[in-house]
Formats: sequence, C-alpha cells, structure tokens
Amino acid sequence: MAVDSPGPGRTALLALDWGTSSLRAWRVSTAGRVLEERHRPWGILRLPEGGFPAAYASITEGWQGQPDAPVAAIACGMVGSRQGWHEVPYLSLPLDLNQLAGSLTQVGGTGLRLVPGLIDETRDGRPDVMRGEETEAVGALERLDDTAGEILLVMPGTHCKWVRVSNGVIAGFTTYMTGELFAMLTEHSILGRSIPTTAPTLPADDPARRRAFDDGVRAAASDGLAGRLFSVRALVLTGRLDAALITDYLSGLLIGEELTRALAAAHAGSAEPGRIVLVGDPAITTRYARAFATLGRTIPLELGAASVRGLYRIAVLAGLVSATAGDSAC
Amino acid sequence: MAVDSPGPGRTALLALDWGTSSLRAWRVSTAGRVLEERHRPWGILRLPEGGFPAAYASITEGWQGQPDAPVAAIACGMVGSRQGWHEVPYLSLPLDLNQLAGSLTQVGGTGLRLVPGLIDETRDGRPDVMRGEETEAVGALERLDDTAGEILLVMPGTHCKWVRVSNGVIAGFTTYMTGELFAMLTEHSILGRSIPTTAPTLPADDPARRRAFDDGVRAAASDGLAGRLFSVRALVLTGRLDAALITDYLSGLLIGEELTRALAAAHAGSAEPGRIVLVGDPAITTRYARAFATLGRTIPLELGAASVRGLYRIAVLAGLVSATAGDSAC
Repeated sequence: MAVDSPGPGRTALLALDWGTSSLRAWRVSTAGRVLEERHRPWGILRLPEGGFPAAYASITEGWQGQPDAPVAAIACGMVGSRQGWHEVPYLSLPLDLNQLAGSLTQVGGTGLRLVPGLIDETRDGRPDVMRGEETEAVGALERLDDTAGEILLVMPGTHCKWVRVSNGVIAGFTTYMTGELFAMLTEHSILGRSIPTTAPTLPADDPARRRAFDDGVRAAASDGLAGRLFSVRALVLTGRLDAALITDYLSGLLIGEELTRALAAAHAGSAEPGRIVLVGDPAITTRYARAFATLGRTIPLELGAASVRGLYRIAVLAGLVSATAGDSAC
Repeated sequence: MAVDSPGPGRTALLALDWGTSSLRAWRVSTAGRVLEERHRPWGILRLPEGGFPAAYASITEGWQGQPDAPVAAIACGMVGSRQGWHEVPYLSLPLDLNQLAGSLTQVGGTGLRLVPGLIDETRDGRPDVMRGEETEAVGALERLDDTAGEILLVMPGTHCKWVRVSNGVIAGFTTYMTGELFAMLTEHSILGRSIPTTAPTLPADDPARRRAFDDGVRAAASDGLAGRLFSVRALVLTGRLDAALITDYLSGLLIGEELTRALAAAHAGSAEPGRIVLVGDPAITTRYARAFATLGRTIPLELGAASVRGLYRIAVLAGLVSATAGDSAC
C-alpha cells in the first residue's frame, strides 16, 4: 500500500484500527489512498490521560476537517468491546461481509462509527469471537481477483484467526493463541531464561536460524507441542541447540502445532478448505508461509495487512464516503 | 507416610529434596521412619543470604548429630544441576534404578551426597532430562508390591514426567510442561484476567467445578488444546462458563491434552505401556485420576509423594544407613 508524505491532500475518511495494545490511524483520500498514517501505544487497556476522547482527539489532530465539512470516521477492533469506548454487539454467523456496513454504531458525541465484531456459535459448546479481523477480512477479499468458492483466511498475530469464507460469506472461524503463547513462553517460562531478546525473524542470510525454525515445525508436526516443549530446554542443555536459536525453534514448534491442528480441522470439515491466504504483517506471515513449505504444503498467497482497505471499503458501502475512481486504491 | 512429632528420636539420615523453587528436608530413623520434616522457600534460584551452605545449615539445624557420630545426609533435585550447589553429571538410559546409589557425589566440605539426575537420549533429536524424579521413582517402586513387567509412572507437577520402567530399569521418559503452562496462562494471559485466585482443587461437594474440569478434559481430547484455548474466553463472554470456573476448565483442558498426547505416544511405542501409576501430591494426582476416568480409561493407582522414601532407599543401597526392621518404613 502506498503512503503519501504528510500533506493537506483531499481527506475523505479517518480510519482507525484500535486494539488491545495499540492504536493505528490513517487519513484516507476519496479514492481510498492513504495520505498519512499514525501509530500510538494507546490500546484500550493503556489509554493516555483523558481516556478514549483524548486519545481519539490526539491521534486525529489536524485531520478532522472544518465544522461545516466534517470528515467521516470509522474504527474497528477492541474499541467496540465491553472494555472499549462503546460496546457494539457481536454479529452472528453465517455473515455476508457486506452486512458489516449496515451495522455500524456511532459513538455518542463524536462522528466516529464502530464496526461490530463477530461471534461464531455454529459449533456446539465452542464459541469464538473476533473484533477487528472481520474488517481485515473485508480488505483481504477486496484484494483478491476472485473471491468465489471456499477461501481460508489465516490471520497471524497475538491471536491468530483461521476464517472460513464461502462465496463472500463468513461461515466460521477458530482462534489460535500462538502469538500470546510465544510471548508468554519467552518472557515467563523456564525456556525463556537465557533467551536473547531478538525477535524471531527469519533472515535470509542466516541458515542456522532458518534450520532451527524448520526443526521446530517438523517436531510439532510429528509429535505435537505438549511432549516437545520441554525438549527445547533439554536440547540446549545437551548442546544440540544453540541458546541463540531458542526463539526460532520455539516459534517453529508453536506455528507447526497451529498449522497441524488447524489443517486437520479444516480437512475434517464438511466443505473443502479451499484456497488458503495469509493476511497480515509480512514479518509474521513469512514465517507461516515457510512453515507450510516445511510441512510439504502448498505455500499460501501472502496478502499483507488489509485493515485500512477494509475500513475504507466498509465506509464506502455505508455511504460515508463517495468512492472516486481516482488514483490507485489502498 | 507417618510423621512423628519433633523429638530426639534416633536419627540415621538427613534427606533433602532441593528443587528450583523450594527446599524440603526430613530427619529419618534407621528404619526409614520420618521423625521430623521441614520446608523452606529456598529453591536453588532463591537462596537466603549465605547461599547453599547457609540454607543447608539452617534447615538441618539441630539434626547434624555429634562431630564424633555424624549423621549421613543425601539430597536430590536441582541442587545437583549446573545452577546448583555442585554439578553432578546426568546418568544415561537405560538405567537400573539400583545404580543411582553407586553414583552419589559428595559436596566438598560437607557430608552431603547428591543423587545424579537422568538424561534420556534414546530418541533421535528429542533429549529429555530430570533431576529429583529419579529418586521419587525409586521410592514409588519400593511401595509397589510387584515391580515386574512394564510400569508407566506419571509424576505430575510443574514439569510432569511420564517414566517408562521395565523390570526396574528406566527405559525412557517424557516431560510435559503442564503445570508451568497452567501457571503462565492464569497469571499472564488474556484468559487469566478476572480469574479468581483459588487453586483448581476438585471439592467433592462442588459439582459445577467438577463438571467444568471434565468439560475441559473432553474438549482437549476431541479437538486438541491449540484450537480450544481461546474458546475459554469466548465461553465466558457468552455466559456459557462462569468466570469462577475458568481455572477448573483450563486445568481440564491442559491435563486432557497431556493425557491424550502421552497415552497416544505410549501406545505407539514398541512395548505395551503396562500399568500406569500416579506419583505425587494427592492434591494434583486426584485431578489426573479424574481425567483418566473422564476419558474412559482405567483409573491409575495413586501412590502419593515418594521422595523421602526414595532418598532413604538410595542411602541404604549406598551403605550410608544400616536399615533395621524396626517400625514401619516411610
């Protein structure tokens, strides 16, 4: 997605992705082009003084337009949860993604509209919820040339979502806490002691780190995570794994477990899982793509992050923005 | 195990189980009877001022006998690790448990002898280690009338060990980090927010808590932990699970995953898994026993804790204590 340098531009929409730990905002043109982007550590659980109103005013400062010509504003994520600014009820499945635009809720006293989250109650005794990923799913499908048939969107992060989309309708989803488990294990477990603080990226020029990641993926796929987790420590104690490679091996173990379990569940379902598409920050989707390859699976398409595109698309469908066919969309 | 009230008694052995987070010591009679027990929070990673020597002197104060008639002393656990008082190399598998007595290492300047830990390098690329459980295994086998054939000792705790014993010889073992995962998830994850601080015991008079535990066990057994973990949050959000029951459900999920994985691995091995025996604090082995029942498995025998019995037995085999046929053994 192209980002212009800050400037007046022709602002049509303020788009916010407001999650638990961070807040991201974009100033978007009529044609859906990102004119400016801002990022603050103001997740809904760590707001600045003044709470939600102050955070919102600050991150959109100078973007609000004139009183006689206000700019539309839309937000997705945990901001619409019970702990958020204004609770927006979940929508149930199955859900045509176009319906999201018809269910926006305005935060009283502001022009900000919130996108509802989704709840999956299609499986007995096993509900699931999302807030934010539904919007990114809209953006991801926008970027695909063809959205007919079955698509499995995999959206890695703190809580990775596997979203089954059937001809544009969300049929179900499952959350894997892989990112949170990785953070907990490196920060709080016996495996994390003496771990270097570098993030588990996969530098192309470091074959040892890539190999450690692959070994972790294969170990989880063959034996499962539970009986392998402690062996990380034993591998280091016996000199078989360099302590500098623990995060890579551990990342492989966790992603390998997620892939194995999620693919087994997808193939156990009544419908074919269809095309698999990775959505999100390339720093993390790259690792998932590699894990698919390590397991001998078809490597999914990597789409990149799609929140702002989803927010723009929903705003257009809701009539908040009159889309123009101007410059390339975000 | 009977514990006499503190008194002079006829001390033959000071027995210590010295782990990562706590230190336990017993004064044992010639016949193996526990005369007195002490407990301190001085695990090897949180020693008092003065370090190991000070901790040892303090917890055995008044127990040491006379200079002309010193009392034998033996310890097992992480005290023999690299971060411990004196590093004792691991013994390799397969290992006849009687060999432990021939491999004690004395801490210089003291009469204290350390039991070596074990390393399992029998599986390609998947080593495992233990320190302390080998001693408890000796004690557990002592308590069984018949130790012939195959026995699978399950030793729950922070790091639960599944130990395969074949005619008194340890053939292999696998560690499951179930206890540590439970602590991490309740203390540091999104699932732990708003969790009551009560321990997940299973009171006989609280059917709701027992049912939540059983539900967790079954959920893990049918779908695996990875895709079920986040549903704990969704179950609470949708009112299907009372927040007061989260720890019980989560405990069931984690133990259910461990049992499913470990039993599958045990049955995949070349030998029959044999009799399963639970060893350890009844507060935790009771939960494992219930999970076996919930999964329709034969409920294993629960042996209780066996560290001091193991320490005594090893001391007798090493000639540190002359066993008498006096009162009932510990």
